[in-house]
Amino acid sequence: MDENSIGYVIPTIASIKNPLKLLSGRVLSQYDLRYETYGSLNKDKSNAVLICHALSGNHHVAGYHEGEEKPGWWNNMIGPSKPIDTNKLFVVCLNNLGGCHGSTGPTSINPETNKTYGSDFPIITVSDWVTSQKELMSYLGIPFWKFVIGGSLGGMQALQWSFQYPELINNCIAIAAAPKLTAQNIAFNEIARQAIMKDPNWHNGNYLEKGVSPDQGLALARMLGHITYLSDESMREKFGRDLKTSKLNFNYDVEFQIESYLKYQGEKFVTGFDANTYMLMTKSLDYFDPIKDMSQSLIKNLQKSKSKFLIISFTSDWRFPPKRSKEIVKLLLDNERNVSYSEISADGGHDAFLMGNHDYFDIMRSFILESNNGI
Amino acid sequence: MDENSIGYVIPTIASIKNPLKLLSGRVLSQYDLRYETYGSLNKDKSNAVLICHALSGNHHVAGYHEGEEKPGWWNNMIGPSKPIDTNKLFVVCLNNLGGCHGSTGPTSINPETNKTYGSDFPIITVSDWVTSQKELMSYLGIPFWKFVIGGSLGGMQALQWSFQYPELINNCIAIAAAPKLTAQNIAFNEIARQAIMKDPNWHNGNYLEKGVSPDQGLALARMLGHITYLSDESMREKFGRDLKTSKLNFNYDVEFQIESYLKYQGEKFVTGFDANTYMLMTKSLDYFDPIKDMSQSLIKNLQKSKSKFLIISFTSDWRFPPKRSKEIVKLLLDNERNVSYSEISADGGHDAFLMGNHDYFDIMRSFILESNNGI
Repeated sequence: MDENSIGYVIPTIASIKNPLKLLSGRVLSQYDLRYETYGSLNKDKSNAVLICHALSGNHHVAGYHEGEEKPGWWNNMIGPSKPIDTNKLFVVCLNNLGGCHGSTGPTSINPETNKTYGSDFPIITVSDWVTSQKELMSYLGIPFWKFVIGGSLGGMQALQWSFQYPELINNCIAIAAAPKLTAQNIAFNEIARQAIMKDPNWHNGNYLEKGVSPDQGLALARMLGHITYLSDESMREKFGRDLKTSKLNFNYDVEFQIESYLKYQGEKFVTGFDANTYMLMTKSLDYFDPIKDMSQSLIKNLQKSKSKFLIISFTSDWRFPPKRSKEIVKLLLDNERNVSYSEISADGGHDAFLMGNHDYFDIMRSFILESNNGI
Repeated sequence: MDENSIGYVIPTIASIKNPLKLLSGRVLSQYDLRYETYGSLNKDKSNAVLICHALSGNHHVAGYHEGEEKPGWWNNMIGPSKPIDTNKLFVVCLNNLGGCHGSTGPTSINPETNKTYGSDFPIITVSDWVTSQKELMSYLGIPFWKFVIGGSLGGMQALQWSFQYPELINNCIAIAAAPKLTAQNIAFNEIARQAIMKDPNWHNGNYLEKGVSPDQGLALARMLGHITYLSDESMREKFGRDLKTSKLNFNYDVEFQIESYLKYQGEKFVTGFDANTYMLMTKSLDYFDPIKDMSQSLIKNLQKSKSKFLIISFTSDWRFPPKRSKEIVKLLLDNERNVSYSEISADGGHDAFLMGNHDYFDIMRSFILESNNGI
């Protein structure tokens, strides 16, 4: 266990009985949200932080689960005396609706049919997530978020909070995000979905009923994802053209180290992730387009928000490069918001938002400290 | 038919009886090469040009086949009064060994077994291609190439000619190429191969025996390829976030225009291409690494070559961006070669090498005119 660790943490379930009307028109009459909290809510309930996860993330953001060696996915960022300091802040993170880590999703039982949802689980949008996160907020008795923070798809949720419920959020931190996907981003997602849907074990999404899962397709999707998470440079440094053995195979077995790495990542991923959730998450990314969706009332919402914004990008991120973060900054400045922007020099590509980096952590720490004055 | 077209052209077969020892150690005792020629070989046989094709190209480079509406793949570049001027030059282009357009490849009958080669067809390297192209050169009675020209994988063959047979080439033009693949390039190729090999119709590469073909996997591979051929910018311009219909589907059918485009490209491709050839071509790309392979004798070869070099890159090409062409330029300058380099401003991404672009065509034309003085 690392120094300054939160230590052991235990997830909890919130059962929400309020029906949720989704953007698709479908209604979920009830649903569970699995979440973890770190630190304590202070007396005036003014120190709550929501962490939003990205495509393959979940509620286990920091600390350790009993019996597991690996900590939560943002353990370097969150903990006592870390940039998101659990000595001062009350951190909440949940597995998003539609996920496969304990919240209601495609692998859950549909109470109306008593069968696994499978492909019948509706597509959830970023806006739906924010609505469901607001339910969790009420459930926990939190009056407002001091910070909503996320990277990548998580950053999109943080932005959506400031558009959808501007009065409930004091500070928004969106890292390595974009205001909407480009055609290229959508193309990568579509190929991932096609890989899953072409797997003979897909069965139109109702694979669990058949006792199988489209692992080969999901592994391919994940391998492809990994290319977009790493930078060309970091792949070169890590793998270059190194071979597994000393000479060329002249066949189609794993040959270069990069092939071996991707194969391992694909195979590891499918042991803990559901294909329908992957499908749904990619679609949620494709659909996110608040500027287009922004009705006059949403723009007014944004304009009346008192939220401060911190937007962070990484130089080597080619999935959502700095220019995409700058589009967010422009949108906010055009609406006269209070924005800080930082472009961090880092080789790690899109995944840099998960990595320890001195400048990045310093900026997070100082923005949070400054915004958190008096707590 | 376009103005300045060569008009109708007819491919021919050269049956090579000289056994070819491949880099893998395997030997092809005989093989066919399908080729086309445009223009006429002059009296002193000093005006021959070899065009090398890329991954999915073939021998039909310019002019029209009877009954087909589409001309050859580089018809804008090659023809009477075009930059590669068939009034002055004798242009030769072949379907590479291992291809699926008439040259011996995985879909051919193995004379030793009287069965389709399928997966038993050996992996062919860039060096093997150049050796087989030299056989075609002898077959046609061509003493030397005035120009060897290619884009992408074709550019790698042009470079390989100048390393392998420096005395047989006067001018080398390598466009949108790289001196070797990066880990990211290899990763894309590997995912394409995995998509093909995970198709239930793959049958270890012997699908033709079963009367099927791994079309879904090959289509996925092609879709993925397309992302790397286009620039983010050109995709944005062409498709943006446009939808097929006026509102969101909330399902996994084709929804955005970019999805529709990729699907169409994938489906069209599999009607005319063989999966084993695709596998082999990607592997040939992965293996290309002349700097590493370059023994002292090869370096001496290069140093004694009298070839002039023209290296061209395109600003928006992220598959083989300008910095990769500059690596080639550096290698050549380090060996005191005569190099011209041009970085063309173009939005078309890697595919820009196939597109009409004023600056690009001007540079090609003037380099060829100057080098061709006196013919």
